[in-house]
Amino acid sequence: MLPKLILTDIDGVWTDGGMYYDQTGNEWKRFHTYDSAGVLFARQCGIPVGIITGEQTEIVARRAQKLKVDYLFQGVKDKLHTVTALCQELGIALSDVAYIGDDLNDVALLQQVGWAGVPSSAPDYIQALATVKLAKRGGEGVFREFVEHLLGPDKVAQIVGDITHYNQ
Amino acid sequence: MLPKLILTDIDGVWTDGGMYYDQTGNEWKRFHTYDSAGVLFARQCGIPVGIITGEQTEIVARRAQKLKVDYLFQGVKDKLHTVTALCQELGIALSDVAYIGDDLNDVALLQQVGWAGVPSSAPDYIQALATVKLAKRGGEGVFREFVEHLLGPDKVAQIVGDITHYNQ
Amino acid sequence: MLPKLILTDIDGVWTDGGMYYDQTGNEWKRFHTYDSAGVLFARQCGIPVGIITGEQTEIVARRAQKLKVDYLFQGVKDKLHTVTALCQELGIALSDVAYIGDDLNDVALLQQVGWAGVPSSAPDYIQALATVKLAKRGGEGVFREFVEHLLGPDKVAQIVGDITHYNQ
Amino acid sequence: MLPKLILTDIDGVWTDGGMYYDQTGNEWKRFHTYDSAGVLFARQCGIPVGIITGEQTEIVARRAQKLKVDYLFQGVKDKLHTVTALCQELGIALSDVAYIGDDLNDVALLQQVGWAGVPSSAPDYIQALATVKLAKRGGEGVFREFVEHLLGPDKVAQIVGDITHYNQ
Repeated sequence: MLPKLILTDIDGVWTDGGMYYDQTGNEWKRFHTYDSAGVLFARQCGIPVGIITGEQTEIVARRAQKLKVDYLFQGVKDKLHTVTALCQELGIALSDVAYIGDDLNDVALLQQVGWAGVPSSAPDYIQALATVKLAKRGGEGVFREFVEHLLGPDKVAQIVGDITHYNQ
Repeated sequence: MLPKLILTDIDGVWTDGGMYYDQTGNEWKRFHTYDSAGVLFARQCGIPVGIITGEQTEIVARRAQKLKVDYLFQGVKDKLHTVTALCQELGIALSDVAYIGDDLNDVALLQQVGWAGVPSSAPDYIQALATVKLAKRGGEGVFREFVEHLLGPDKVAQIVGDITHYNQ
Repeated sequence: MLPKLILTDIDGVWTDGGMYYDQTGNEWKRFHTYDSAGVLFARQCGIPVGIITGEQTEIVARRAQKLKVDYLFQGVKDKLHTVTALCQELGIALSDVAYIGDDLNDVALLQQVGWAGVPSSAPDYIQALATVKLAKRGGEGVFREFVEHLLGPDKVAQIVGDITHYNQ
Repeated sequence: MLPKLILTDIDGVWTDGGMYYDQTGNEWKRFHTYDSAGVLFARQCGIPVGIITGEQTEIVARRAQKLKVDYLFQGVKDKLHTVTALCQELGIALSDVAYIGDDLNDVALLQQVGWAGVPSSAPDYIQALATVKLAKRGGEGVFREFVEHLLGPDKVAQIVGDITHYNQ
């Protein structure tokens, strides 16, 4: 069975947790190119992808736009509340949702979704909530690993073959 | 017993020691999102948190403001002197203070405080001064590890539960 | 036998896959100084070097110019198509080409070239396509490792000696 | 016996080899705070420190100024020539010089100096030239490790003690 919606945190998942500050008030995050295929794989299977984060930056808005992510929720205080409302709007259950997160404000959501992923770099007491076992650390492509795990190796191999054939 | 004040160095503790320079005189540091929960945990226990660093940057001023750190001392030449004065002002002893640092200008302070933490990435002769054993390297969330160690796993679990419940 | 053309992907090969975004729409990549000798070694052997990437940035244009790379193809949708056309123009075969890449849009090309290199940090199903075994991860100098492998240790030692002698 | 002059390369020694490019032609390097004590230790022993690099950037000029490095040579094509001239000016021999470098343009100099250091992250055929064994990689504080090795643990311990006492 596949999830009907894949949601993801950003800091510590799409990044290694690094937040780069400079002297002028500007800020940086480091994304990993491998996660872009995670969004692509989900789209090929007709599963929408959403970002939900407690931070509020142009950085993430631009990354979401680049990868054509379906939903973007920033500055979220209560992620479970936001996702519950989205599920109602989409007519799906929390048990249809796959979510990957890594810290305190992800706990309630990780406890309720159908598939809970946590990068191996997260604190032990967050990793304890995972129902999907992941080897990668945040910022190394762990979102892609999560999506590949959800779809399974046969489906991934088929998509890789399709994409390659299409490019030829 | 808990410390009455938690103080921290920045470079090599909240960062991995990296100092990013560009061609225009601007400068960057890379913080880790996990340390923000260290400040939060201390606040939940009513323990004030302070930053004390030999450098003087807008970078650190902004990070301190973002995380609502209680005390910020930058450009400090003699950390032991500054902290001794702060203790007198607060009516506490150096033995009530927990401090985490990693280099030469931290030695005198590490030798005097009640709890001395040193990241595992620090030079051996600085690590030798630690009274609190830490596994993480600078920039990986070692400040959070230090605070979690000071509070103990039961207190941390309780706070995590409280925060999760509050968010629900 | 040596290749007549050495081509390389950028993200995940010349970089560790990191894409740095800031709040203003600017973007960063981190190159490694060791890869510059890869270009130099190829040039010393009279083998042209080209970059071929799906992205389109000033970042890569400038790096290519700095290292005096012979060919630069950016924003490429179908790499096999582009390289086939280049081979026809140069009067060489795909079997004369050495290519190093690490992701989905490299698959078709990796399957057709004479020498296929993949960084050890790439997904397993891309690494499976490699005909040249590489130890390094992307962004650590894996392009240089690829070129050194193509030339062989004796040729590399000779070039290193020549360069040193020239400098003396 | 101590060297009369300590010289150092930058990229791959004071940095991990990373060169950060953006879309505007600006450039970044990541230094490590631990190397600043290397300069300090040498100064405490009356040994001048110099930077010699093939690149030419404001980045390095500013780092040299911050750490009060005694000599700065940028854009150097032939390092052995430059250092030989400096030695003549100072009335010392190449055998009085300690040098740490990591790549092709360091070979001739590494072969001539009295103490040759190479970070553990350098290519094997450069590491083969080292007469001082170093454990750290570039950008991790390997310059400091080099200086500490030159001075020896007793001298380092004495300086650390002196600095600490001075600060108290």
